[in-house]
Amino acid sequence: MDHTTVGIIGGGPAGLLLARLLHNSGIDCVVLESRDRSYVEQRQRAGILEQSTVDVLRESGAGERLDREGLVHDGIELRWDRRAQRIDFPSLTGGRKVWVYAQTEVVKDLIALQVADGAPLLFETQVNEVVGADTDRPVIHYTHQGQDRTLGCDYVVGCDGFHGVTRKAVPDGVMSAFERVYPYSWFGILADVPPSCDELIYAHSPRGFALHSMRSATVSRLYLQVPNGTDPADWPDDRIWDELDARFATDGDWRLERGPITSKAVLPMRSFVTEPMRWGRVFLAGDAAHIVPPTGAKGLNLAVSDVVVLARAFAHLKDSGSTELLDTYSDTCLRRVWRAEHFSYFMTTTLHTDPGQSAFETRLQVSQLDRVSSSRHAAAELAENYAGLHIG
Amino acid sequence: MDHTTVGIIGGGPAGLLLARLLHNSGIDCVVLESRDRSYVEQRQRAGILEQSTVDVLRESGAGERLDREGLVHDGIELRWDRRAQRIDFPSLTGGRKVWVYAQTEVVKDLIALQVADGAPLLFETQVNEVVGADTDRPVIHYTHQGQDRTLGCDYVVGCDGFHGVTRKAVPDGVMSAFERVYPYSWFGILADVPPSCDELIYAHSPRGFALHSMRSATVSRLYLQVPNGTDPADWPDDRIWDELDARFATDGDWRLERGPITSKAVLPMRSFVTEPMRWGRVFLAGDAAHIVPPTGAKGLNLAVSDVVVLARAFAHLKDSGSTELLDTYSDTCLRRVWRAEHFSYFMTTTLHTDPGQSAFETRLQVSQLDRVSSSRHAAAELAENYAGLHIG
Repeated sequence: MDHTTVGIIGGGPAGLLLARLLHNSGIDCVVLESRDRSYVEQRQRAGILEQSTVDVLRESGAGERLDREGLVHDGIELRWDRRAQRIDFPSLTGGRKVWVYAQTEVVKDLIALQVADGAPLLFETQVNEVVGADTDRPVIHYTHQGQDRTLGCDYVVGCDGFHGVTRKAVPDGVMSAFERVYPYSWFGILADVPPSCDELIYAHSPRGFALHSMRSATVSRLYLQVPNGTDPADWPDDRIWDELDARFATDGDWRLERGPITSKAVLPMRSFVTEPMRWGRVFLAGDAAHIVPPTGAKGLNLAVSDVVVLARAFAHLKDSGSTELLDTYSDTCLRRVWRAEHFSYFMTTTLHTDPGQSAFETRLQVSQLDRVSSSRHAAAELAENYAGLHIG
Repeated sequence: MDHTTVGIIGGGPAGLLLARLLHNSGIDCVVLESRDRSYVEQRQRAGILEQSTVDVLRESGAGERLDREGLVHDGIELRWDRRAQRIDFPSLTGGRKVWVYAQTEVVKDLIALQVADGAPLLFETQVNEVVGADTDRPVIHYTHQGQDRTLGCDYVVGCDGFHGVTRKAVPDGVMSAFERVYPYSWFGILADVPPSCDELIYAHSPRGFALHSMRSATVSRLYLQVPNGTDPADWPDDRIWDELDARFATDGDWRLERGPITSKAVLPMRSFVTEPMRWGRVFLAGDAAHIVPPTGAKGLNLAVSDVVVLARAFAHLKDSGSTELLDTYSDTCLRRVWRAEHFSYFMTTTLHTDPGQSAFETRLQVSQLDRVSSSRHAAAELAENYAGLHIG
């Protein structure tokens, strides 16, 4: 049986960054990823990196291309009631910003580093079982290249997402689940057209939410709130552009540029938290432990803060022999997780139109947006949460 | 037929203060109140006056006893998760405070002034009808001392509360109503015991919300969240005190003092807004136009800001002949009204336990309260709204 200090299940951004941070601390680990490299490198996910996430990627050695190709954003624009208001992050947060750099690019950068000089990274590896979480030596049973194998670990970390096997291996009663499913989805498109604005635009409208974002200087990323169960086939390109035009409309003269749509997909919206994020010697990080709706752009950033806290705890164990930071891992992470859950819920419910929403509730949304545009404290509260809190 | 410039229907704080402000500007008016003086002077209502409300009462000449007997409060305490956190108003708002001075005392002071040197104030007067709102000369038909009478007015102001006749006289389709009824009530008591804390305590607890307040240095005012339809007879004194103890409990050593309970009443919780707050020459002010749940202590203060805006508009008309400020009255007030509606909803839904609430939603409440205790911007946002915005 092979052995490693930290067995990492899942080769998305959480698992790959954890492996990188452990490698940098001289702690050995193995990453087991179920998909092939090409699939992982093309999986479309989030695209907004908080200040702290960028700081971590730079420190870990994975910031070179990000600094070259990432788009620095100093704010976002809110639209509602045919008005527009920019929220400036640096002036409201003491200099913090966000970067537009797709998660899939972060993954490519981390894989390249790991392949060049990192710990073993096994693609197309099915984890079948995790046993002995409550012993000193948990074991991962997996299948790779048609062979059943075992990996003995000092610790196991599940970075395998909401549908991953690690959390499902936890016995009933060990963890509590907190959940909310939203009565609407996002219909996301990629279009080969330069962004119509340098920054993201979050639009509240009587027709539902819309978001203007971008992947690069030549590719726009746009989202529409749609009912759950929406079929992209019901949305020909013209209908998408017309609906986006209607939702972004203001009394100003901004215009949304149209271009060839290269991708259409419907994304469900969910809030989910597992407490605690640990079971014996098995830890959960990132989407395996918590899901946020995408409105606050917090999913990837939470995964990063989880693994930073965890890597520090493993380094502390190596240096001092103390499990103190491992023992506080779950509590430390959950404070930040619940802050992000609250902010994501706030952004989602302030900007979307619930199908059962009353006219009173719509007026409250508008009043909240009016307040963000007129009160420095309300604007700063949004900016601090969006640009992201310090990791700790 | 008698005639006046402004016919005011309702002799609560809104109507009485409007009459005072008009009197001070040399504008004649008549106040018609359905109840007798003693009833009006004993009606138990709100007890928290915002900074701006106190400023207005002082300027109007009604601040003398308030300054002598009112209790100045520099903050409130929040409790949740067995923790306590004080929110300091002056340091977060540039010096603004609130005063504990019961609405019923404000009413007594305003009646005394009006009886001494003010406009006619008719108690036990039933308004039967308001006609001609869309003409230059609306007429109030009322019954006083068994006689049917009419009062011709340049303008009519309905200050007669949520159940008043003025709003009901508005034809269908003129105004839109926005409403929310909450799935819980407040059970309020008065007790002859000095307050157990110098300031108000707003407590979130798994058992439901509780509020510690006071009427004076010797009378405590306490509230418990209870299900709608609760019968005070089901709550003997010991049960009330035991439940209050359980909801206020923290890991500190604070103790709630008990004393004889002199009043028990159940108060429903409602949000309600009418738009616009005007129909021809009839204006609505205070509870006649909008209701807030009591959690944010905004009801009386909104009534005051409405009549300040309206009195300024009548003074502007008298001085310049222009109806400009009357024409913007509704829009000006509604901005502040919706801000207060949002804040009251925020305080209510953050602190109360909805019977259908999920564990996820409870965690969001706790995360919001954690945030208010750790972020200056989040604390200031609460403090600014609670101590009250400038009237504009």
